[in-house]
Amino acid sequence: MNDVNAAPAKVRVSLGARSYDILIGPDLLRRAGAEIARRLPGVRAAIVTDANVAENHLATLQGSLADAGIEASAIIVAPGERSKSFATLEEVVSGILDARLERGDIVIPLGGGVVGDLAGFASGIVRRGMHFVQAPTSLLAQVDSSVGGKTGINTAHGKNLVGVFHQPQLVIADTAVLDTLSPREFRAGYAEVAKYGLIDRPEFFAWLEKNWQAVFAGGSERVEAIAQSCQAKADVVARDELEKGDRALLNLGHTFGHALEAATGYDSARLVHGEGVAIGMALAHRFSTQLNLASPDDAERVEAHLAAVGLPTRLSDVPGGLPGAEQLLTYIAQDKKVSRGALTFILTRGVGQSFVAKDVPTSQVLSFLEGALSQ
Amino acid sequence: MNDVNAAPAKVRVSLGARSYDILIGPDLLRRAGAEIARRLPGVRAAIVTDANVAENHLATLQGSLADAGIEASAIIVAPGERSKSFATLEEVVSGILDARLERGDIVIPLGGGVVGDLAGFASGIVRRGMHFVQAPTSLLAQVDSSVGGKTGINTAHGKNLVGVFHQPQLVIADTAVLDTLSPREFRAGYAEVAKYGLIDRPEFFAWLEKNWQAVFAGGSERVEAIAQSCQAKADVVARDELEKGDRALLNLGHTFGHALEAATGYDSARLVHGEGVAIGMALAHRFSTQLNLASPDDAERVEAHLAAVGLPTRLSDVPGGLPGAEQLLTYIAQDKKVSRGALTFILTRGVGQSFVAKDVPTSQVLSFLEGALSQ
Ligand SMILES: NC(=O)c1ccc[n+]([C@@H]2O[C@H](COP(=O)([O-])OP(=O)(O)OC[C@H]3O[C@@H](n4cnc5c(N)ncnc54)[C@H](O)[C@@H]3O)[C@@H](O)[C@H]2O)c1
Ligand SMILES: NC(=O)c1ccc[n+]([C@@H]2O[C@H](COP(=O)([O-])OP(=O)(O)OC[C@H]3O[C@@H](n4cnc5c(N)ncnc54)[C@H](O)[C@@H]3O)[C@@H](O)[C@H]2O)c1
Ligand SMILES: [Zn+2]
Ligand SMILES: [Zn+2]
Repeated sequence: MNDVNAAPAKVRVSLGARSYDILIGPDLLRRAGAEIARRLPGVRAAIVTDANVAENHLATLQGSLADAGIEASAIIVAPGERSKSFATLEEVVSGILDARLERGDIVIPLGGGVVGDLAGFASGIVRRGMHFVQAPTSLLAQVDSSVGGKTGINTAHGKNLVGVFHQPQLVIADTAVLDTLSPREFRAGYAEVAKYGLIDRPEFFAWLEKNWQAVFAGGSERVEAIAQSCQAKADVVARDELEKGDRALLNLGHTFGHALEAATGYDSARLVHGEGVAIGMALAHRFSTQLNLASPDDAERVEAHLAAVGLPTRLSDVPGGLPGAEQLLTYIAQDKKVSRGALTFILTRGVGQSFVAKDVPTSQVLSFLEGALSQ
Repeated sequence: MNDVNAAPAKVRVSLGARSYDILIGPDLLRRAGAEIARRLPGVRAAIVTDANVAENHLATLQGSLADAGIEASAIIVAPGERSKSFATLEEVVSGILDARLERGDIVIPLGGGVVGDLAGFASGIVRRGMHFVQAPTSLLAQVDSSVGGKTGINTAHGKNLVGVFHQPQLVIADTAVLDTLSPREFRAGYAEVAKYGLIDRPEFFAWLEKNWQAVFAGGSERVEAIAQSCQAKADVVARDELEKGDRALLNLGHTFGHALEAATGYDSARLVHGEGVAIGMALAHRFSTQLNLASPDDAERVEAHLAAVGLPTRLSDVPGGLPGAEQLLTYIAQDKKVSRGALTFILTRGVGQSFVAKDVPTSQVLSFLEGALSQ
């Protein structure tokens, strides 16, 4: 295992002239310089990272770039969601311009989804769009945020409301850097991995049920799980680059999940995104059962797997208590557009059989939530 | 003239799925609501404008939108280049989000190039790209900045270094609003009109020599000159949407012009952009003469026309004095990339016969500037 010279797994994101590779494998960061130099000869780089990731992995990337003759500066931001702001964006843009990079040079976001969204956005607006290479270091970033070209920041009005679609030239997912991620963050990212199985890959979900411990431990199963997830996301992105419709299934578990994040004031001590998604996916399956769309066995199976890896699955798992069903519905309605008393939900006919349900009556959501709150 | 019901002139910018119309004619602002409602039924709008333009034309646009049943809010920024900043961008983005607009709703920059660049950029990043409709009110904005999808702001590192390519759904150029523009700003915009003739439309330049007074006075010649200019720019943009090369000819007069703007500290009391371009175009023709590329008659003809409309054409026309040739060359080198002691210039073989000259030796530029400074 961890053989630096083994060929990494590769997933291609097919977007015509904007197509790119995702490389996945252990210790890839040490090969990053060579992989970049081969594809983008002569570039200079600005690495953008956060203080946590810098401590653990910045030197490795810097060394690798230096060995490949790639001149690189580093811009370090504070860890956490609050860095996805206009103020930090301006700092990053300024740092890139200080480094006198041209359009064909690269920005390298080295970090989780926060750094990827922030620095990806910056690279999309400096000189009206520079090249960039994603180097995701959280599981969530490797299987989700680094793939698909969505970049952005938050404002007082809400999350991810400002940004651009900007595709990277390359994604380098070093699966060994995940060993320094906290177990809680790893589990949160795993919720998104399981999501791809639950959307439309039942064999992948069954594989995860058998192999999740190996995925957590690292090694070839981890590479496999991340590659399958990237492939799943890449397929969706290829069908709907600018999110005009087809990406909706990716929101499985997210309607409930976002409402829970809002209800807990985005306080990561109480709930991180992936935990909200885990509860949301369990709820989406139970809601589908209650609507006689799916069998209770499927809902139980999903809940059992998420619980086995240590993810929360019930509303009562959220520490600190939740508001009532009416208030949760208000949060849901804020996230989604409500049209004529009905909501759009991702529901399911069973494991790997999710679908977009338009016109779900809010009254049904409300009575489901009332039941779920008492469990 | 000024018949509100006459069909406006129309120029099509051909960019596949991103194609759009430029409507040009007197009193079009009064028809803006109807033109928008016809093309984008059901939209809501946020108008972004500056205090000068608001005073003169905001009520007209608001009335027109209201008549067409388009709900619109207004965001007013301070006039002038300093509004092309991160701080004002954040304000505009915030105002658009306050109005709760969706991706398919529209931002309407109503103003000169400053408002167009700033609000066009904001519309390009809110919800990762909203629709927008340019309503340019300066001559420069009508013939240049509102066409082609380049948007952006300035930073301490330089002008227009941050932004996106984002094409509008429609451009509405009301030629009568130019009557409230200061004569100096009108002349400055006219330099860009003349530029299109000098690049590759000799008949247009000849037409301008005959008809410029009617263009300044308003009426059908003004519409004609703006339409010809938009067509010229649209042709270039269609060939090179993302400015990968072919747009270079649009920089005729701009290499010298930008150096003069820098040398006068971007002080618009001394020199506005179009004035720098006018001097720059005259210099480009004289430089081409000195290099035996063009006949002195052509250079004199260009200078005579620009001087006739009241534009500056010589370095000595810049009030407050200029630095020496060496220093001017430094400013030129900052604007352009210098490779191996040579510069890229737009030179000419005569009126309407401009071309991109790579590898112009800096020594030749220097000796030309020394001569030009003593005239
Ligand atoms: N662009 C998209 O398509 C998309 C999709 C999903 C989520 N997102 C965004 O992603 C963000 C969440 O991403 P995230 O969960 O990676 O958050 P994050 O970037 O905040 O990372 C989580 C924490 O882990 C730390 N960390 C990351 N990698 C580490 C490593 N290898 N070792 C030690 N510590 C490490 C970080 O410093 C941070 O404290 C959100 O802002 C969300 O909106 C974007
Ligand atoms: N995006 C592009 O492709 C492109 C191309 C060329 C220039 N530009 C940009 O355009 C900007 C310059 O544009 P500009 O010359 O229009 O400057 P501007 O927007 O500052 O307008 C000039 C002045 O005229 C006023 N004004 C505008 N219309 C008026 C009207 N109808 N009546 C009364 N006053 C009016 C404005 O308030 C301002 O004071 C620069 O920032 C430049 O970088 C962009
Ligand atoms: Zn998610
Ligand atoms: Zn210009």
